[in-house]
Amino acid sequence: MNKIETFPNPAAGRNYEITHINPEFTSVCPITGLPDFGTITIRYIPDEICLELKSLKYYFMEYRNEGIFYEAVTNKILDDLVEACKPLQMEIISQWTARGGMNSIIKVNYLKKD
Amino acid sequence: MNKIETFPNPAAGRNYEITHINPEFTSVCPITGLPDFGTITIRYIPDEICLELKSLKYYFMEYRNEGIFYEAVTNKILDDLVEACKPLQMEIISQWTARGGMNSIIKVNYLKKD
Amino acid sequence: MNKIETFPNPAAGRNYEITHINPEFTSVCPITGLPDFGTITIRYIPDEICLELKSLKYYFMEYRNEGIFYEAVTNKILDDLVEACKPLQMEIISQWTARGGMNSIIKVNYLKKD
Amino acid sequence: MNKIETFPNPAAGRNYEITHINPEFTSVCPITGLPDFGTITIRYIPDEICLELKSLKYYFMEYRNEGIFYEAVTNKILDDLVEACKPLQMEIISQWTARGGMNSIIKVNYLKKD
Amino acid sequence: MNKIETFPNPAAGRNYEITHINPEFTSVCPITGLPDFGTITIRYIPDEICLELKSLKYYFMEYRNEGIFYEAVTNKILDDLVEACKPLQMEIISQWTARGGMNSIIKVNYLKKD
Amino acid sequence: MNKIETFPNPAAGRNYEITHINPEFTSVCPITGLPDFGTITIRYIPDEICLELKSLKYYFMEYRNEGIFYEAVTNKILDDLVEACKPLQMEIISQWTARGGMNSIIKVNYLKKD
Amino acid sequence: MNKIETFPNPAAGRNYEITHINPEFTSVCPITGLPDFGTITIRYIPDEICLELKSLKYYFMEYRNEGIFYEAVTNKILDDLVEACKPLQMEIISQWTARGGMNSIIKVNYLKKD
Amino acid sequence: MNKIETFPNPAAGRNYEITHINPEFTSVCPITGLPDFGTITIRYIPDEICLELKSLKYYFMEYRNEGIFYEAVTNKILDDLVEACKPLQMEIISQWTARGGMNSIIKVNYLKKD
Amino acid sequence: MNKIETFPNPAAGRNYEITHINPEFTSVCPITGLPDFGTITIRYIPDEICLELKSLKYYFMEYRNEGIFYEAVTNKILDDLVEACKPLQMEIISQWTARGGMNSIIKVNYLKKD
Amino acid sequence: MNKIETFPNPAAGRNYEITHINPEFTSVCPITGLPDFGTITIRYIPDEICLELKSLKYYFMEYRNEGIFYEAVTNKILDDLVEACKPLQMEIISQWTARGGMNSIIKVNYLKKD
Repeated sequence: MNKIETFPNPAAGRNYEITHINPEFTSVCPITGLPDFGTITIRYIPDEICLELKSLKYYFMEYRNEGIFYEAVTNKILDDLVEACKPLQMEIISQWTARGGMNSIIKVNYLKKD
Repeated sequence: MNKIETFPNPAAGRNYEITHINPEFTSVCPITGLPDFGTITIRYIPDEICLELKSLKYYFMEYRNEGIFYEAVTNKILDDLVEACKPLQMEIISQWTARGGMNSIIKVNYLKKD
Repeated sequence: MNKIETFPNPAAGRNYEITHINPEFTSVCPITGLPDFGTITIRYIPDEICLELKSLKYYFMEYRNEGIFYEAVTNKILDDLVEACKPLQMEIISQWTARGGMNSIIKVNYLKKD
Repeated sequence: MNKIETFPNPAAGRNYEITHINPEFTSVCPITGLPDFGTITIRYIPDEICLELKSLKYYFMEYRNEGIFYEAVTNKILDDLVEACKPLQMEIISQWTARGGMNSIIKVNYLKKD
Repeated sequence: MNKIETFPNPAAGRNYEITHINPEFTSVCPITGLPDFGTITIRYIPDEICLELKSLKYYFMEYRNEGIFYEAVTNKILDDLVEACKPLQMEIISQWTARGGMNSIIKVNYLKKD
Repeated sequence: MNKIETFPNPAAGRNYEITHINPEFTSVCPITGLPDFGTITIRYIPDEICLELKSLKYYFMEYRNEGIFYEAVTNKILDDLVEACKPLQMEIISQWTARGGMNSIIKVNYLKKD
Repeated sequence: MNKIETFPNPAAGRNYEITHINPEFTSVCPITGLPDFGTITIRYIPDEICLELKSLKYYFMEYRNEGIFYEAVTNKILDDLVEACKPLQMEIISQWTARGGMNSIIKVNYLKKD
Repeated sequence: MNKIETFPNPAAGRNYEITHINPEFTSVCPITGLPDFGTITIRYIPDEICLELKSLKYYFMEYRNEGIFYEAVTNKILDDLVEACKPLQMEIISQWTARGGMNSIIKVNYLKKD
Repeated sequence: MNKIETFPNPAAGRNYEITHINPEFTSVCPITGLPDFGTITIRYIPDEICLELKSLKYYFMEYRNEGIFYEAVTNKILDDLVEACKPLQMEIISQWTARGGMNSIIKVNYLKKD
Repeated sequence: MNKIETFPNPAAGRNYEITHINPEFTSVCPITGLPDFGTITIRYIPDEICLELKSLKYYFMEYRNEGIFYEAVTNKILDDLVEACKPLQMEIISQWTARGGMNSIIKVNYLKKD
């Protein structure tokens, strides 16, 4: 996988919130092989380092032809990004376009332990 | 009734929230025999297993010609889905199109006892 | 006045929330004699009995030619419906179309005492 | 019925368009006795005289307790207002809130013959 | 099939437009057996008779469990309603919720020949 | 200044919330002499008396040609209305149309001391 | 009255369309003395000269305390602006906030004669 | 490429309009290799045969990893679909999400020659 | 100025419409020195060549610190782009954020002479 | 840098909230040199002094040609404005238009220490 780049938090020591919204996420359903489309929201409180926006875009593009379920991909993104930037808190929300007439939303949270 | 399928929670042990929204629910008014139309929202925190989306669709389709009141169907969906996936928490919201010029919304919650 | 019909709560013993929204309420201003138009929202947690939707519609229609102020009618609806279904909690919200260029909203709550 | 007041067209001789929109029209269904709610739009090109807004409001209020069908009331309003102000052209549009889950719109036009 | 009721046009001789919108239409896909959901719009210029709204509702309800394609049902509704009320002009528009991520709209017109 | 009229609270003893929204407020910038336009929201819990809507309209009209800053007028309205009706709680929100490409919102609260 | 300033059309000889929208127009009802609020749209094809935006703003401000009817003020603005810039075509649209629950729109056109 | 399936027009001989909207189209920019996302609208008047919806979905999926420009892909879809169903008329509209802060729309038409 | 790049029309000989929308245009008012913000829409029918999107972005960026009036900049963009790609038709629309409480829109057209 | 002007709080001693929203902020990406566009929201509880709106506008204009990252500029605005008006609390929110298909939001808070 592409490396997720980071940069030093320009206001380390101050608690503040960064949100990145990607309305152009796409992966593939592992059962039907059909494409899934969704919006991924990353919301986090950085500690020492921040996520670099461009490498984040390339990271998301790697799912384009990968077969993975809604619940699994949302948890995997959280794990990958927590590992990349070691934030104080992080939330990942994935909102999916309708399949079989139904819309799904998955919300996962991480809170750094003291 | 169709069996509601489930699959193992890919992130068991982590508390996170799954929402499925079905804007195409329809049942029948038990008094007038006229069709009712609504949006059903399922929001839950899974424990060991998750609800499988496709079987959920077939489960909802079984109400298509069944006569049942707003309050009753919302409570019954909660009972059926809690039994199917034994979640830590679950909320069912049903929002109905206007009948006699009035819109109704029913919200029911389940919280697993320790 | 028409009697407000009720029916037994199909899930008595479980705390859940029922909302009925009537966007077609109309009464008359007691000073000018001009019609008022508003949306009435009823939100309640039923105890033993629920409000029957059709009789509710007829109940609201009785205000059509009655002269009554915004504040008074909102409080009266709460009193009448609490008496009719003896809920655990109830909230009435009335939102009125502009009069003299100004919109009004009245929000009244009831909480059953133990 | 209340007389519909008029006033001399302040720009007689110039063709221009006047629109009045009443989103608070209500009448009664002649079959069920239940209230109907709609938005009435009047669009006209005045000739010698214009419709006075306040008397128009009182004119509409006279339908409040009158039993009349959608198609009939829309045509009657056109006839009454054409008679009142003798315009060069007039269009009446009535848009009704849902009854039995269906919305209706009626559009009627008048064009003065030379 | 239920008979579509009609009533005499209250303004026969005047060309005007009537629109009825049914956002709660549902039929069944003849291949998959899955329900389809759509909004049906009827727009017509009546000649001698008008469509009665309540029987129209019952007419639409007969498609609830019938397997029929988008293109076919839209053309059939036009044929049935033209036969029922013999209008000067009629247009039927069906707008369908997404299937396989795609939305469809069908627009069919009828013009009485002189 | 015009007197702000009041009337006895029809449900004195019950805590409930009244909101009046005036989207047509206008005053004058004391520096440039140019008009300012805003929406004023009054939200309060009445004690013994309520604000009368019509006199409120006349009260707001007195600012039409008065030069006063955003922050000052919002605080003054709170002071005047608290004095007029002695509520248990009151909040005034003023939302202003863009000046120099920027929008402003001022929110002031009053809480009666025991 | 303030003079409406103009400047030479930078593309004289080419037919093109300029629109200015003023959502903050206010005048006074000549009967009740109450303020009216509206949006004024000016759309024109310039000939030799264009309307200068700032002096237009001051021109509109002169109506702030003037008693004038909807129909009259819309026609007067057209006459004044045609005189000021002698356009090839001009349209004035005034859209007014609700009075007595009714909204009004006035549309007036000018076409230069050859 | 996948074959685009068709079926006989159920109302051949009557001119009517079919629209299919695919808000989930994605292809790849041939220069940067980055994904493009767009909505494709197909609007056509069928002659003897209609486009089958499911094979259309598979046809669109073939662009998922193909490098092709906005203008080229819109023209190619028109050519392919005209060849597949030989319609009387067809229009393809592609609307693309922002790239470099700019949105693009391409509209191509086909009209059968007599 | 940066050169506006072009590329050969991939469907030369077929009349079709290309639209590019730039919601992030900014220039400077030549009188006050304050920044202006607007949305520029380019709609054209290409002849032999098309506008390349990236160089268009750089072309627009050159106005960032340039003092120029609404009417002048809209006409200049039309002239520059017509010269760059020699289209069959072109329309430029500029829509500007409010200045002094007023919004402006300029629409300019070009039609190739035979 | 331009000095940020202030004026004495007209209601010093009362805790209330002031919000200024600038939807026309623009700076430059320090890596690509391309312009960034965003909306800056300032929400604060003043202590002794308030921010003067016009000098705030000039303060924001100084970023027009400055290369600075999203996270850095949001923190810098907070620092500068806290220093300028020494508020009891302040929050800065920056919301940015899409870059590479992704939107970002940064939220920073300041709370005066006792």
